[in-house]
Amino acid sequence: MPIIDKTACPVKTGSIYPAPYAAMMAGRQSLRLGDAGGLTQFGANLVMLAPGAMSSLRHWHEREDEFVMVTDGECTLIDDTGAHVMRPGDCAAFPAGDPNGHHFVNRSDAPAAFLVVGTRQNPERATYSDVDLTVEMKDGTATFTRKDGTPYKDDSK
Amino acid sequence: MPIIDKTACPVKTGSIYPAPYAAMMAGRQSLRLGDAGGLTQFGANLVMLAPGAMSSLRHWHEREDEFVMVTDGECTLIDDTGAHVMRPGDCAAFPAGDPNGHHFVNRSDAPAAFLVVGTRQNPERATYSDVDLTVEMKDGTATFTRKDGTPYKDDSK
Repeated sequence: MPIIDKTACPVKTGSIYPAPYAAMMAGRQSLRLGDAGGLTQFGANLVMLAPGAMSSLRHWHEREDEFVMVTDGECTLIDDTGAHVMRPGDCAAFPAGDPNGHHFVNRSDAPAAFLVVGTRQNPERATYSDVDLTVEMKDGTATFTRKDGTPYKDDSK
Repeated sequence: MPIIDKTACPVKTGSIYPAPYAAMMAGRQSLRLGDAGGLTQFGANLVMLAPGAMSSLRHWHEREDEFVMVTDGECTLIDDTGAHVMRPGDCAAFPAGDPNGHHFVNRSDAPAAFLVVGTRQNPERATYSDVDLTVEMKDGTATFTRKDGTPYKDDSK
């Protein structure tokens, strides 16, 4: 049956980010809708943000196109040009290789959610705009480095 | 600006189908949101169906994954297993190569719409479940044939 049963779709919480960044993802959950429906060529995830939560660190992808449609509540897109409030039905596109770092923050006092679609390239690299961090995804493994290419190590403690 | 201005997005009407099928697409319009946002790796289109309209002939793709989220009104998914009413937030996935022909029909008396995302493979072939028609898309050109591979010619007149 092509219709996706959201109630049977595993809820993903937590983060693969290294410390101290993983803790900043509290209040974010996602449903991997495309995976649940047997898709492999792109991810289609419903990202749910509690008040105050963010979707990810602000980032951009080298090789993957990304598309977002807000589905619930109010999501604030933060990118290189500032903060932009988006509401249900509003859409945004982030072409591969465009170094305009972006993420979504729920600055409201109610739950918010958006659908995000992104192609799956292997390997892929993402760069985090506001911190000294990049990630290479290869064969399902994420390797975090600093922007100079040296291994990432948490110096915050 | 990554946010897509829907009011500036060209509205696509009509159909590339040969007669007599093109006329069956009356009442369908779409906004090419992904194209408007500069994406190339997948299409992300908002398909708007007037009461009685259908999204396409019932079909399946050989090499392209497809994902749908209903955004407005009531869309009835018709596939090999029957008719399934879907409402805003409901999602469906159609993996490449799964020969479960599908389309969406607005059987309500109010406008309806859905977001559809599909990868772009070149070449690609789609097969229409209920009529003697297939299409090959190659380098932006659609070639319609009968299921036995002979060129399609409209015999309905």
